[in-house]
Amino acid sequence: MSTRPTRLTCPARSPVTDGDWGLLEPLAGGATDTSDDAVLGALVDVERALLRAWGDLLGENLDAVASAMRTDRIDRADLLAGSRTGGVPVIPLANQLRRLAETAVPGSGEYVHAGVTSQDVLDTALVLMAGRALTRARDRLVAAGQALVALAESEQTTLAIARTLGQHAAQSTVGVAVAGWLDGVTSALDALAALELPVQLGGAVGTGEDVDRLAGRAGATDELRAGFAAELGLTDPGRVWHTERSPSLAIAAAAALIGTALGRIGRDVAFLARTEIGEFSLGATGGSSAMPHKRNPVDAVLLTANGLRVAGLVATVHSAALSQDARPAGEWHAEWAALRGLVRLALESADVAATMLPALSVDRAAVERNRALSPDLADDRAATLAASGRIVSTAVRRFQSLHPTESP
Amino acid sequence: MSTRPTRLTCPARSPVTDGDWGLLEPLAGGATDTSDDAVLGALVDVERALLRAWGDLLGENLDAVASAMRTDRIDRADLLAGSRTGGVPVIPLANQLRRLAETAVPGSGEYVHAGVTSQDVLDTALVLMAGRALTRARDRLVAAGQALVALAESEQTTLAIARTLGQHAAQSTVGVAVAGWLDGVTSALDALAALELPVQLGGAVGTGEDVDRLAGRAGATDELRAGFAAELGLTDPGRVWHTERSPSLAIAAAAALIGTALGRIGRDVAFLARTEIGEFSLGATGGSSAMPHKRNPVDAVLLTANGLRVAGLVATVHSAALSQDARPAGEWHAEWAALRGLVRLALESADVAATMLPALSVDRAAVERNRALSPDLADDRAATLAASGRIVSTAVRRFQSLHPTESP
Amino acid sequence: MSTRPTRLTCPARSPVTDGDWGLLEPLAGGATDTSDDAVLGALVDVERALLRAWGDLLGENLDAVASAMRTDRIDRADLLAGSRTGGVPVIPLANQLRRLAETAVPGSGEYVHAGVTSQDVLDTALVLMAGRALTRARDRLVAAGQALVALAESEQTTLAIARTLGQHAAQSTVGVAVAGWLDGVTSALDALAALELPVQLGGAVGTGEDVDRLAGRAGATDELRAGFAAELGLTDPGRVWHTERSPSLAIAAAAALIGTALGRIGRDVAFLARTEIGEFSLGATGGSSAMPHKRNPVDAVLLTANGLRVAGLVATVHSAALSQDARPAGEWHAEWAALRGLVRLALESADVAATMLPALSVDRAAVERNRALSPDLADDRAATLAASGRIVSTAVRRFQSLHPTESP
Amino acid sequence: MSTRPTRLTCPARSPVTDGDWGLLEPLAGGATDTSDDAVLGALVDVERALLRAWGDLLGENLDAVASAMRTDRIDRADLLAGSRTGGVPVIPLANQLRRLAETAVPGSGEYVHAGVTSQDVLDTALVLMAGRALTRARDRLVAAGQALVALAESEQTTLAIARTLGQHAAQSTVGVAVAGWLDGVTSALDALAALELPVQLGGAVGTGEDVDRLAGRAGATDELRAGFAAELGLTDPGRVWHTERSPSLAIAAAAALIGTALGRIGRDVAFLARTEIGEFSLGATGGSSAMPHKRNPVDAVLLTANGLRVAGLVATVHSAALSQDARPAGEWHAEWAALRGLVRLALESADVAATMLPALSVDRAAVERNRALSPDLADDRAATLAASGRIVSTAVRRFQSLHPTESP
Repeated sequence: MSTRPTRLTCPARSPVTDGDWGLLEPLAGGATDTSDDAVLGALVDVERALLRAWGDLLGENLDAVASAMRTDRIDRADLLAGSRTGGVPVIPLANQLRRLAETAVPGSGEYVHAGVTSQDVLDTALVLMAGRALTRARDRLVAAGQALVALAESEQTTLAIARTLGQHAAQSTVGVAVAGWLDGVTSALDALAALELPVQLGGAVGTGEDVDRLAGRAGATDELRAGFAAELGLTDPGRVWHTERSPSLAIAAAAALIGTALGRIGRDVAFLARTEIGEFSLGATGGSSAMPHKRNPVDAVLLTANGLRVAGLVATVHSAALSQDARPAGEWHAEWAALRGLVRLALESADVAATMLPALSVDRAAVERNRALSPDLADDRAATLAASGRIVSTAVRRFQSLHPTESP
Repeated sequence: MSTRPTRLTCPARSPVTDGDWGLLEPLAGGATDTSDDAVLGALVDVERALLRAWGDLLGENLDAVASAMRTDRIDRADLLAGSRTGGVPVIPLANQLRRLAETAVPGSGEYVHAGVTSQDVLDTALVLMAGRALTRARDRLVAAGQALVALAESEQTTLAIARTLGQHAAQSTVGVAVAGWLDGVTSALDALAALELPVQLGGAVGTGEDVDRLAGRAGATDELRAGFAAELGLTDPGRVWHTERSPSLAIAAAAALIGTALGRIGRDVAFLARTEIGEFSLGATGGSSAMPHKRNPVDAVLLTANGLRVAGLVATVHSAALSQDARPAGEWHAEWAALRGLVRLALESADVAATMLPALSVDRAAVERNRALSPDLADDRAATLAASGRIVSTAVRRFQSLHPTESP
Repeated sequence: MSTRPTRLTCPARSPVTDGDWGLLEPLAGGATDTSDDAVLGALVDVERALLRAWGDLLGENLDAVASAMRTDRIDRADLLAGSRTGGVPVIPLANQLRRLAETAVPGSGEYVHAGVTSQDVLDTALVLMAGRALTRARDRLVAAGQALVALAESEQTTLAIARTLGQHAAQSTVGVAVAGWLDGVTSALDALAALELPVQLGGAVGTGEDVDRLAGRAGATDELRAGFAAELGLTDPGRVWHTERSPSLAIAAAAALIGTALGRIGRDVAFLARTEIGEFSLGATGGSSAMPHKRNPVDAVLLTANGLRVAGLVATVHSAALSQDARPAGEWHAEWAALRGLVRLALESADVAATMLPALSVDRAAVERNRALSPDLADDRAATLAASGRIVSTAVRRFQSLHPTESP
Repeated sequence: MSTRPTRLTCPARSPVTDGDWGLLEPLAGGATDTSDDAVLGALVDVERALLRAWGDLLGENLDAVASAMRTDRIDRADLLAGSRTGGVPVIPLANQLRRLAETAVPGSGEYVHAGVTSQDVLDTALVLMAGRALTRARDRLVAAGQALVALAESEQTTLAIARTLGQHAAQSTVGVAVAGWLDGVTSALDALAALELPVQLGGAVGTGEDVDRLAGRAGATDELRAGFAAELGLTDPGRVWHTERSPSLAIAAAAALIGTALGRIGRDVAFLARTEIGEFSLGATGGSSAMPHKRNPVDAVLLTANGLRVAGLVATVHSAALSQDARPAGEWHAEWAALRGLVRLALESADVAATMLPALSVDRAAVERNRALSPDLADDRAATLAASGRIVSTAVRRFQSLHPTESP
C-alpha cells in the first residue's frame, strides 16, 4: 500500500483546474447527464459501439478490444491539448483509444474509429448524451405532471380570480390554472415522444466510401450504420446529416420546449407566491445573505431563469445550422455547447419541477381574499365549476394518454 | 356618378403613409400571404367563421351577416388608432364588424365576436395566415425539391472534390452535394406535414364560460370550437393555449427549418458560384450600382440573408413563450410580429428557391478543374460513383415518399 | 379639372398593397421616422448630399440637379422590382435619380451616385434615419426623464416596501424606485450622447479609387467624404466600414438600451398597477374585447413587449456583423431590417414613455397598505428617508448634468 | 509527514466530478481568467476588499481578517449545495468566510459581508473578473493589432482582387484587406478603453441603509462604496445598478465586439486559406481524424465559431436586463453565465488571434494568380497603390494613437 498520494489519486482532474464546476449554475448538480464527463462517456460508448458494429460486419469478435476502451483510462489533459490543436476532441480521443486497443489486443488498433470522421463520433455522442439526459428529463417531467394532476384535481373547485395583463379579469379556478401548466408539461412530453435520435455515420465527406473500402464491398456503410444504431439504441436515419442539421434543431426544439414550459410555471408560481398574492407557497425556500427573514421562492426563480436562457441558445443552434460544404468552417463547432446547454437547461428544469411541484401548497384563504377584491367579477359559480371540471379532466386525460399511470 | 375622387378611392391607404412597403425587404413581393392585408383578411375570416359556427350551434342562419363582414369595408385608420389605445387590433375590428353586421341585419351585432376574447381571434388569425402562407411555401418547396431531384440525378456521376473546413477533403460527386440540399428540403416538408394548426377559443380567461352562457348550456364552448375549426379548416386542439405557446413554437420551428435549409443552399450556391470556384452559375443574376460588369448571385445571397435572420426571430418567439397569468403583460404582444416574420422568411425563401434552383447550371469543366487541384485525393472512381448512386437515390426516394410525382 | 380619379391620386401607394401598415404593431404610428418612406427620404437626402459634396469638390453648382432629385418623384414599384433583381434598392434608385437629374439638367446624370457603391448610400441612409429617429427619441426620453424627476422628488418621502425575488424585502421609498427608472433613462441618454453617426463612403470595394479617378486626383475620396458628412450633419469616420460593422453595432446598442431601460419601467409599472398591488395607476388605459370593465395598463404592456423584442434584433445585428470579403454574401443584407427595427422600438418606446410617465399617479394609501403587510420590515424611518433623499438627488443630478433644464 | 493522502490532496475538486473541464470548448484553456476558479477568486477578492473598506471607514485594522479569507480554504462542495438552496453562491460563501474570519480573529465575523447583499458581491465579482479577463484580452488584441500593422504595411503594395457578394469586384491590395481587419481590432480596443467597470454596493434593496446603520451615520454607504472601488481598482458609479443593467450591457457589448471583430477575421482567413484560393496560409494547422493529409485552418475556424456564438449570448444578456422590483425573480440569475460566456469568448478569441496573426503568411503568387482571373478588372495600378497607402497608414495611425509603440 502506498504511503503517499499517488498520481492516480485525482489524475483525471488535472485539466479541470480551470474548468467550470458549477459556481455560476445553481442547478448544475441536477444535470450531471450533460457534464463533460457524461459527454466523454458518450464519446467512448460511441467508439465502442462502432467497434462492435465493425465486429458484426466483419464477423470478428472485438469484445476484448471494446472492453479495453474505458473512459477511466482516458487522459483528459491530452484530449484538451489535442482539441486545441485539431479543433475537435475526437482526434486525440481516437488516438488514445487506438493505443488502449493495441495494448489489450495487439493489431486491433486499426478497427478503432475505422472509416469514420470526427463529426460522426461527436454528433452521435451528443445525440446519445441528449437521449440519455432527455430520458431522465422525461421521467422527471412525468413526475412533475403527476403532481400537477393531483393539484389540478384537488383545486378543481377552488374558485380564483384569473388575471390578464396584470388585471383581475374573470372568475376561474386554481384547477384551471394548474391544468394550463399541465398542458405545457404534456406538450413537452409529446415533443419528446416524437423526437428522433439518429446516429451520424458518413465518413470524411459523407459518402461512407472509407467504410465500403475497409469492408471490401459497396454499401457496407449502410450496414455498419444500422448496426451502429442498434448497438446504441439510436435511430438509423438512412442518411448522413453532417450539414443538414434538422436532427440537431429537433433536439434543440424539444429541449427548449421543456425549459419554456417549466419556465412559465416558475414565473406563475413566483408571482402567486408573492407577499401580496400569497396564493401558493413552496415547500422549500431559500434565504438571503442580507435578509435572513426572507423566504425566497428559489426553485421558481431558477425555473424562470432557465426559461429566460432558452432563447439565446436556440438562436445559436439556428445560426450554427446554416452550414456549408461537406463540413463548415465554424458553424458546426458553434453548435456543440449550445445544444448541450439546451439539453442541460431542460434536464435541470425538469428536475427542479419534479421537486418543487409536489411540495407546492395552495392557500385557499388567500385565493378567496384576492378573488373578493373584485366582487363585480363574481360570476355564476356553477358555470365556472362546470367549465373547470371539463378543463381539468381534459388536461389530465391528455397527460395520461401519453403516460398511463399503473394500476395497483 | 361622382365627378371627383371620392373618399373611397384609396381610403384604406391613409394610415399606410408611414408603413413598410418593402424598401428594406428585397423579397417582400414574394410574401404577400403574410402582409398586413393578409393578416387582416385572416382576422375577418376568423370572425366570419366564428359567426357561422355560432349560427350552426344556435340553428340560426347568419350567412347574410357573415357576408356583410367584408375586409374591404374595414377602416384601417380606425384599426390602428384602436390598436394604439387597446394594445390589440381586434378590439376596434370587432367594433367595426359589429357595425357592419348591424347595418346588414339589424340586431345581428350581438353574434359578432360573441363569447371570445381578442387573443382567440388574433391567435387563430395568425395560425390561419401561417397555414395559408406555409401551404404556398410547401408548394414552392416541392418545386424546389423537384429541381434538386433532377439536378442530383443528372450530376450523380459528376466527380467533384468535397471540402471540409474550407479545405479539399476527399472525392465525392456534385450529386451527393445536391442530395444533401434535397435532404434539407425534405426535412422541411416533413416538418410541415407534421405541423398542427389549431384554432384558439377560450374566451376572456380560457374557461369558455361566456360561450357556455350565451349558448345556454355547459360544454357549448367545446362544440363551438369544433365548428369554428371546421369552418377554417384548422385543427380543434380540444383545449386552450392562450399561455401554453407550444403551437406557436411549432409553427416557428417549421418556418425556421425552411429558412435554415434554404439558407444553407443559398450559402453553398453563393460559394460555388464564386469567381474562383465557378462550379455553379445562376440563371438570373443581379448587377451592381458601382460595378456594372458584376453578375451577383442575388438569389443565393438573399436566401443566405433570410437564413441569417431566422435565429433572432426564433429567439423572440421563445422569449415570448415564457407566459404568465391567463394572458401576460407583454410577452404575447411580443410574439405577433416575430411569428409572422418567420413565416414570411420561410415563404420568401421557398419562393426564391423554387425560382433559383431550376435555373442553376453546373460547369462540369470547372468542377473537374477544381478536383484536379488535389490529385492525391483522386480515389477509386467506381467506389465513389457507387456511393453517390446510393446517396442520390436514397435522398430522391425520401423526398418522393412525401411528395409522389404524378404519372403522366 | 379631372372628372375622375387620376393615376396621381395615390400612385406611390401601389406597391404598398401588400405592405405592413401597422396592423401587428400597436405603436407603429409613433415611429414614422423609421418607416420605409423615412428611409426612402434618407436615401434621397444621401444622394443629394453626395451630389452637393461633388459640386463643392469640383467647384460646380449642382443645386438645380439636387433640387430635381425629389422623393415624391420616386416610383416605388420600380424600386421594389429593381431591389428584387439586384438585391438592394439603391441600384434602381440611383437610376431613377439619374433620370430625374438628366431631365432637369441634361448631362448632369453622371454626377449622380458618382464613384460610390450601393452600400455607401444605404449604410449612410440607415445611419441618417437612425440619427433622426434617435434625436426624436432623445427628446422624448428627456421628457420621460423630466416626468421621472418630478415623480421621484414628489415621492421621495413616500415609504414603500421594496421587493426582491417577488418577496417583501426591506423598507424603501417610491422615490428610490423611480430614481432607479430615471437612472435607466439617463444611461440611455448617455449612450445617445456618445453615439457616433458616421457616413459611409468607400466605393466599389472600399478603396475610394473611383472617386479619386473621377475627381482627377489621389485623395479626393477623403475630401468628398468630409464634405458628404458635413452636408448630412454626420461624422466623417476617416475610414470605410463596409465590413467593420462596429458603427452599426453601436447604433444597435444605443437603441437597445433605450428599449431595455423603458421595457423595465413598463414591467415595473404593469406590476405596480396590478389589481392586488395598486400602487400606481396609468392615466390612460385600454379596454378589452371580452371584458369591458377592464382597465389594462396598455402603455406599460407595450413598453414591456418592446423590451422583450430587443434581444432577438440585437442577436441578428451581431450575426450580420460577422462579415466577409469587401462585402459579404448575405450578412449585410440581413442587417438592414434588424437595425431599423431596433431604432423603431427605441423611438416607439420613448414616445410611449413620454406619454405614460407624466400621467402616472401614485396611490399612497395602497403603497402604505402593502408596506403594512410586513410590519417586521418597518425599519428606522429617518434612515430610510435620508437614504432616499440622497439617492433621488443623485439620480436627478446625473440626469440634469446631461440635460440641463433651462432657467426661466 | 502524513503517510496517506490528506484531505488537502484534491479536496476542492470533489464537486467538480461532473463539471465542464473543457471537452466541448477547444479554446477553454486560453480563458482561465473566466473559469469558475477565477470567479471564485474574484468573489473572495471582493469580500476582502469590502472588509478592508470597512476597516478604513471604521478606522480598524482588519488586515489579519482579510488575510484569513483565502480562496484555497473555500469548500466548493458546500458552495454548490448552498447555491442550490439559496439560488446564489454568495450566501454559503459569506458563511464560510465569516467562519474563516472568526477562526483567525474571534469576533471579526460581523465585519464580513457587512451591510451588503449577495448581488453586491456577485455583480462586483463578475465585473472584476471581466475587468481582469478583458485586460488580458486587451494585451492580446494589441499583439494581434501589431501583427496586422506589420502585415498591412508589408502587403500595402500587393495588388489583389477584392470580392463582393463572392464575385471578383475590383482591384485592391492585400494591405487594404488587412487594414480593414486592423480597424476591427482598433474598434474593439476603443470599446475597451471606454468601458466603465463599476462596483455594485447597495445592500438589501439598494438604499445602503444597512451600511449607514452599521457605520452609525447617514451617507456612510457612499464612503464605503468609494473605498470598496478603490480597493478593487474599479469605478465608483455613485449609484446602485441592481436593476439598471447598463453596466452589464456595456461589458457585454465590448466583449461581443471583440468576438465579432475577430470572428470576421477568422472567416476571411479561413476563406483566403481555402484550397482554391490559397492567398493566406496559417502557421499552425490541424489534422483530421479521417483525413490525415488535411491541413485545417483550425484557429480561423475557432475564431469564426466564437464569432457565431456571440449573438445568442448577447441576446440572453439583453433578455436578462429587463429587470423588475429591487431584484427580479429570474432575470438576474439568467445574466451570470451569459455575461461570463461573452467575456470568455472575447478572451479566447483575442488569445487565438494573437497567436494566429503573427504566423499568417501571404502567398503573393496565389494572390496574383487569382487577380489574373479577372483581367478586365486590372485598373490603374498607381491609383490603387496610392489609395492602399492612404488606407493602410490611416488604419495604422488609428491603431497606434490608441496604443503607442514604445521607442527603443
